[in-house]
Amino acid sequence: MPRPYNFSAGPATLPEAVLQQAQAEFLDRRAAGASVLELSHRGPEFMQVAEEAEADLRTLLSIPDDYAVLFLQGGATTQQALIPLNFADPGQAADYVLTGHWGATALKQAEPYVMAHIAADTSVDGYRDLPARDEWTLSGDAAYVHYTANETIHGVEFRDIPDVGDVPLIGDFSSSIAAEPLDVSRFGVIYAGAQKNLGPVGITVVIVRRDLLGRAGQPRAPILDYRAHDRAGSMLNTPPTFNWYLAGLVFKWMLAEGGVAEFARRNARKAAVLYEAIDGSGGFYRNTVAVDARSRMNVVFSLHDDGLDARFLAEAKEAGLISLKGHRVLGGMRASIYNAMPEAGALALAGFMGDFCKRNG
Amino acid sequence: MPRPYNFSAGPATLPEAVLQQAQAEFLDRRAAGASVLELSHRGPEFMQVAEEAEADLRTLLSIPDDYAVLFLQGGATTQQALIPLNFADPGQAADYVLTGHWGATALKQAEPYVMAHIAADTSVDGYRDLPARDEWTLSGDAAYVHYTANETIHGVEFRDIPDVGDVPLIGDFSSSIAAEPLDVSRFGVIYAGAQKNLGPVGITVVIVRRDLLGRAGQPRAPILDYRAHDRAGSMLNTPPTFNWYLAGLVFKWMLAEGGVAEFARRNARKAAVLYEAIDGSGGFYRNTVAVDARSRMNVVFSLHDDGLDARFLAEAKEAGLISLKGHRVLGGMRASIYNAMPEAGALALAGFMGDFCKRNG
Repeated sequence: MPRPYNFSAGPATLPEAVLQQAQAEFLDRRAAGASVLELSHRGPEFMQVAEEAEADLRTLLSIPDDYAVLFLQGGATTQQALIPLNFADPGQAADYVLTGHWGATALKQAEPYVMAHIAADTSVDGYRDLPARDEWTLSGDAAYVHYTANETIHGVEFRDIPDVGDVPLIGDFSSSIAAEPLDVSRFGVIYAGAQKNLGPVGITVVIVRRDLLGRAGQPRAPILDYRAHDRAGSMLNTPPTFNWYLAGLVFKWMLAEGGVAEFARRNARKAAVLYEAIDGSGGFYRNTVAVDARSRMNVVFSLHDDGLDARFLAEAKEAGLISLKGHRVLGGMRASIYNAMPEAGALALAGFMGDFCKRNG
Repeated sequence: MPRPYNFSAGPATLPEAVLQQAQAEFLDRRAAGASVLELSHRGPEFMQVAEEAEADLRTLLSIPDDYAVLFLQGGATTQQALIPLNFADPGQAADYVLTGHWGATALKQAEPYVMAHIAADTSVDGYRDLPARDEWTLSGDAAYVHYTANETIHGVEFRDIPDVGDVPLIGDFSSSIAAEPLDVSRFGVIYAGAQKNLGPVGITVVIVRRDLLGRAGQPRAPILDYRAHDRAGSMLNTPPTFNWYLAGLVFKWMLAEGGVAEFARRNARKAAVLYEAIDGSGGFYRNTVAVDARSRMNVVFSLHDDGLDARFLAEAKEAGLISLKGHRVLGGMRASIYNAMPEAGALALAGFMGDFCKRNG
């Protein structure tokens, strides 16, 4: 029996080929005599895994040489605390753009350390659109401007990189990194928990323009200091080796499939077929996000009658379509269609939605 | 061919039965339709994994009910920064006992936040013995006393819990947790990276006496706040689900094997056979740690002639005994024999050592 299509928002579906390779070499990778889980992080076998992962990610995302790439623990949320500690003076202003739940989380992590300023906030509209750039109120002296490229709960995504002049732009790309080509040179920092588009949970990628590592920041322990992690090649302490290895397998898979340009095409087609299933349902399914702000990664929708929700989820599961229940904040449904979701999965879901609508409309 | 015996200091060998189970259910655990890696951390399948892991660890270590158990990211080093942030006032005194490399690391992480006081330090002797308790100089008003139960590089281990009166005692048990029964109630905090005795790297266990969670601590982001992690059931952000699951499998394996009392017996026998191989070699092998301070977990030794090191390592590998090279700080050899190392592995190594000595002595 084929595996179900898993629309989980993260931890999310992984490429089946990657899972099969990791399973095959789970007890002994390349005659090392041990599982990747059991190898010293400083031994030659794992050092090669780590170096290839960084090189492949640099290729995949066209990361310029003047950017450091860190592989860290703690998830995106930890980086949201480390960003002010590393890049802002104590009490300095920092601008936050809130377009959903995760932008608000980033703000909360920063508040103990900076004068956090909300430059834009679409919460009054329920985060259903993006704030026009000319309506942002930026501080004159901000250490940086932070925004969330894609909001997984509200299904809202920036498709253009906002222009904030010379102030470093920091983007949380946890749920959309590597979904399409990105001009990394426009950013001061890009960070992403891996568990959506890059592979497994438990490892986080931080891409930092090197000149920002020279900022004094605030008093902090070495383990909370990006400079120390950079100097140690992300091995200041024992890194999550198996998670790093799995992410590396996902990078190789993405390159072999054609890289981010190819995934941009696939992701556009997957999102189109699902939004068509919603918009063409005559109101049976609804998505209230402004069309230009709709996420390609997280397609949020509700049924016109939420009394049908349980039946929709049960029948979808029967049809091999799982983890479609929406986040508790919004209710309804959510189909997360990151890079590892095959186009066949989106087509199968769209077909099911059409059929369910006919039978219950 | 059997797998080699892997004496890596961490990431370290895992029970083969655990690896086999994880491999068998790697693509689909219990008909969930997805890998553990792909399950939502808030779904019923993973919630059960998480709850069973905590319950099993509480049973294994006899953790009293007034202690919280947290499963976190960042390794032991991150906890070394969070401990002063959570349990000390800014600039308050905190006492550190240094008996090896990792105690010194703990001190470094704390220095930005507290008036760190070195209560004892055996570095002048090369960390080859433990400081007698009556020679410690404790501060009168310390927030806590921190020590390292086992030092993996120097092979020195506390076998008795030091008495520090009413001041909370904080122990880094990264490399010796669950190696023998332990009276948790004697501690304020016990913490341990999992990659030695508890399973995989990428997850860290923190056991905290609940009254300490009421301390104000210092300004810190929610993600750096143990209280917030406790309230959220260690799911303040997406936890490292696969690592947590693997640790849970190791807990079940340890319970099935007879629990910590049984591992204490096995560990004592494993250590005895190796120290006998050293002490009975007529000086061919040497360990310079005071006998009562010798680690049961990390048996450090050197050959009388370091010109033989490369041959020793090569022939050991041929004999199915890997990862014996000592840490670069000390050179020589190190055999790490955590719970998952079978007694047959220690016997095989002792046999090889005797044979190598005969042929080269």
